[in-house]
Amino acid sequence: MGDEIVPLSAPSTLDIIAGADAVPVGDPIPLGDATLEAPVVPGAAIAIGLNYKAHAAETGQEPPAEPVLFAKMRGTVNRPSGPVVHPEWTRRLDYEGELGVVIGRRAHRVSAADALDHVFGYMAVNDVSARDRQKAEPQWMRAKSGWGFMPMGPWITSADEAGDPQTLRIRTWVNGELRQDTNTADMIFPVAELLAYASQVFPLEPGDVITTGTPSGVGVGMDPMRFLQPGDVVRIDIDRLGSIEHAIVAP
Amino acid sequence: MGDEIVPLSAPSTLDIIAGADAVPVGDPIPLGDATLEAPVVPGAAIAIGLNYKAHAAETGQEPPAEPVLFAKMRGTVNRPSGPVVHPEWTRRLDYEGELGVVIGRRAHRVSAADALDHVFGYMAVNDVSARDRQKAEPQWMRAKSGWGFMPMGPWITSADEAGDPQTLRIRTWVNGELRQDTNTADMIFPVAELLAYASQVFPLEPGDVITTGTPSGVGVGMDPMRFLQPGDVVRIDIDRLGSIEHAIVAP
Repeated sequence: MGDEIVPLSAPSTLDIIAGADAVPVGDPIPLGDATLEAPVVPGAAIAIGLNYKAHAAETGQEPPAEPVLFAKMRGTVNRPSGPVVHPEWTRRLDYEGELGVVIGRRAHRVSAADALDHVFGYMAVNDVSARDRQKAEPQWMRAKSGWGFMPMGPWITSADEAGDPQTLRIRTWVNGELRQDTNTADMIFPVAELLAYASQVFPLEPGDVITTGTPSGVGVGMDPMRFLQPGDVVRIDIDRLGSIEHAIVAP
Repeated sequence: MGDEIVPLSAPSTLDIIAGADAVPVGDPIPLGDATLEAPVVPGAAIAIGLNYKAHAAETGQEPPAEPVLFAKMRGTVNRPSGPVVHPEWTRRLDYEGELGVVIGRRAHRVSAADALDHVFGYMAVNDVSARDRQKAEPQWMRAKSGWGFMPMGPWITSADEAGDPQTLRIRTWVNGELRQDTNTADMIFPVAELLAYASQVFPLEPGDVITTGTPSGVGVGMDPMRFLQPGDVVRIDIDRLGSIEHAIVAP
C-alpha cells in the first residue's frame, strides 16, 4: 500500500464487503496515476442533520432530541476528486465535511452496543448542500441531493484500521483556508447510536452509507456568510482515513 | 397473459428495461398460484407530496408552488401482497394509494415535453405513512421509510399499454370500504412535469421509481381520523394497471 494501489480480483466493493476472495492481480499502480472512483455506490445514503452542538448553534437550531435522518439519493454519488457541478437552481452552495460509515453486515433492529459490529469501514464525505433550497423547501431532497452532491473516499478504511470512530479529527479547507476543525468525539449521537436508531426504521444492508453530520464551520454559519463558487476547491481530511479534494465547476 | 404468468428468460426487471431479449421459458403458471415479488427494486424511490388539491386541503396545507420531493428508501420495497408490519414507533399508520412510474431510459434535465419518452411503465403503489412521525419530525425519513412501507405492483404495465397517465381512475379500499376514488387527471403536477422537475436535480436512471402523490381520502383526513391497525387489509386499484392488496400485521 502506501503510495501505491494494488488491483484486486474481486469485481466490486460489494463483493469484497460480502467476503469474496480478493487477490492482487497485475502490478501496483502509483496512487498519483489513478483517478479513484467513489468506493461504493449506495442505493441512497442515510444522512444525519445537526449532529454536532456547535453546528446546530451556528445554524440557529436547537440540538435535536433524536437523530434527524434524511436521504442523499444515488445521483449524488461522486468521486473523491469530484468535480461538483454548481447547479443553476441555487445561489447558496455549501460544504459539509463528514465521517461516512459503510455497512458490512445487515443491521435490523440492532442495539447501540452491537451496532459497530455491522460496520465494514469509514471514509470522508462532503455532504454538499444548497442552503437556499434547504431553507425554502419543506423537505431537503433538492437541497441535499443535487447531482454529484456527495464526493466520498478517498477509499474505505476498514473498521479495524480506523479504530474508535469517536476519536477522529475532521478538518475542511476551502481554497486552503481551514474552515472546519473538530473531533468526532463531539457528535451528539455517536455512530453506534445512529446505526441503532436507523436500524429500527429499516434494515441497513451491506454497502449502505451513513454520513454522520457536519461540525461547525460551514459557510452558512460564517459572518458574513460565504458560499461556494465555481473555481473553489474543497478539501476534507479525517485522521487515519485520508483526504478528499474536489473543485466546484460551473454548470 | 390474462390469468397466467409466463416465466421469461431475462434475469431481472432491469435487464428487461435495458432491452434484453426475454423469451418464454417453461409453462405458464396460474396467477393465483404465484406470490408476486416487487416488480423492481429502486435504490430509493422518489416520492411526491401534496400532488392533489383535495389531499392538500384535507391535511390542512396549501397546494405547493413546486413539487415536494422526498425519498422512500430501498428498505420500504414490498410485494404487492405485503404484508406491511405495523412498527411500534407509530400510533398513526396510514395508506396512500398512488400511481407509480418506472423509468426506462436515463433522464437528465429533460423537458416536460420529452419526459414521458423516458418512462418504461406504471404500477400501483401504497406510500405507507406514519402520520405522527410525519408531523413531529422535520424530515419525513422515518414517517415514510419504515420497513416494507412501499407495496407495489402487481406488475409493471408498459407505457404503451397504460396509455395517457393522466386518465387513470385510482381507488383505495380499507377492509372493503372505499376510501379514495379520484382520477389522475386531478394531479397538480402531471407525471411529465414531475419527471422534468426531478431530472433537473439528479439524473433519473432505468429502474428508478417515482410515486406521484396521493389523492384525498387518507385516514388522517377523516373526521374522526382513522388509522391502520394489525388485521386491516388495504387494496389499491388503478385503471388498466391492476390491483395490489396487502394486510397490516403486528410487529
